[in-house]
Amino acid sequence: MNVYEARTESVLTTPDPDSFVTHAQERITVDLGGIPGDRHYGLLRPADSRQKLYPRGTMIANRRQISIVSVEDNAEVAERLGVENILPEWLGANVLLAGFERLTLLPPGARLLFESGASLICEGENEPCIAPGKEIAAQYGRPELAARFVKAAKQRRGIVCSVELPGVIAAGDKVRIALPR
Amino acid sequence: MNVYEARTESVLTTPDPDSFVTHAQERITVDLGGIPGDRHYGLLRPADSRQKLYPRGTMIANRRQISIVSVEDNAEVAERLGVENILPEWLGANVLLAGFERLTLLPPGARLLFESGASLICEGENEPCIAPGKEIAAQYGRPELAARFVKAAKQRRGIVCSVELPGVIAAGDKVRIALPR
Repeated sequence: MNVYEARTESVLTTPDPDSFVTHAQERITVDLGGIPGDRHYGLLRPADSRQKLYPRGTMIANRRQISIVSVEDNAEVAERLGVENILPEWLGANVLLAGFERLTLLPPGARLLFESGASLICEGENEPCIAPGKEIAAQYGRPELAARFVKAAKQRRGIVCSVELPGVIAAGDKVRIALPR
Repeated sequence: MNVYEARTESVLTTPDPDSFVTHAQERITVDLGGIPGDRHYGLLRPADSRQKLYPRGTMIANRRQISIVSVEDNAEVAERLGVENILPEWLGANVLLAGFERLTLLPPGARLLFESGASLICEGENEPCIAPGKEIAAQYGRPELAARFVKAAKQRRGIVCSVELPGVIAAGDKVRIALPR
């Protein structure tokens, strides 16, 4: 098994159920449903437009518990949009990694093992939608960025994960990334 | 998304906790932990020699809830071993499919949607170990088959799955197989 190492720049949660914008924390504790108290927490979640195999609202296993983005992918999207930077808060991300190129291409089944104890399973690419684009547009006062984000962030918007080993993820953690064979 | 169709030849469970040999049923009902009453049931399971990222016994999310094999892969293994056939019971399989070539190569993230309502997520190849080989060896009175099975069944031993949509899987069900993009 190929194992790479990266680092955890920050960890973030969404305590406000009415907003997907996240806020940085020192650490988060995860269990089999994700991050308790976070808006994406739960063993089950309703299928939405991303799960076209099911009628909208069907309660299915929650494999979109935790959103992970990277400094490298964010920088590429920022360059494509012509903005200085893109913060993980605006993307609703829960973890910001650095030191692993092309994080978004990580295949389903890859594992992320954090130094503080928790580990996650990659469930695949987080397909970009317009909501973070609107947040970026608002931050820079450039309304045209909202729709442009969806295209610019393709294969650069990070991944969604679920929890394999409950435990802690802390800002500053080293993380080992293991590719499936 | 590419979707293929196959059929469910049989469904099986292991009510006996001391044996991995499965027994055919008319139907099974699955929930987020797998097949209630089956020996592989549970939201958590102890890591074993297949999960080398964790110390043995670490309680992790159970992604090996349901074992699926195929008529086609079984026939290939039987031919390699020089035996007439290999029954799903001897492999401890829970579902036997037919009509989908190279089932074992199905990547993590593929979905299997059964006509009776349940759907499963492919978690990847079920790496062959010696236990089913011993069962095959006993069935044919040929002890040398036990060790040969492990090599002969590589990439032909089926997949392990977890439950995405709780519900029923019945013998005779059509199943749609959706590849991840």
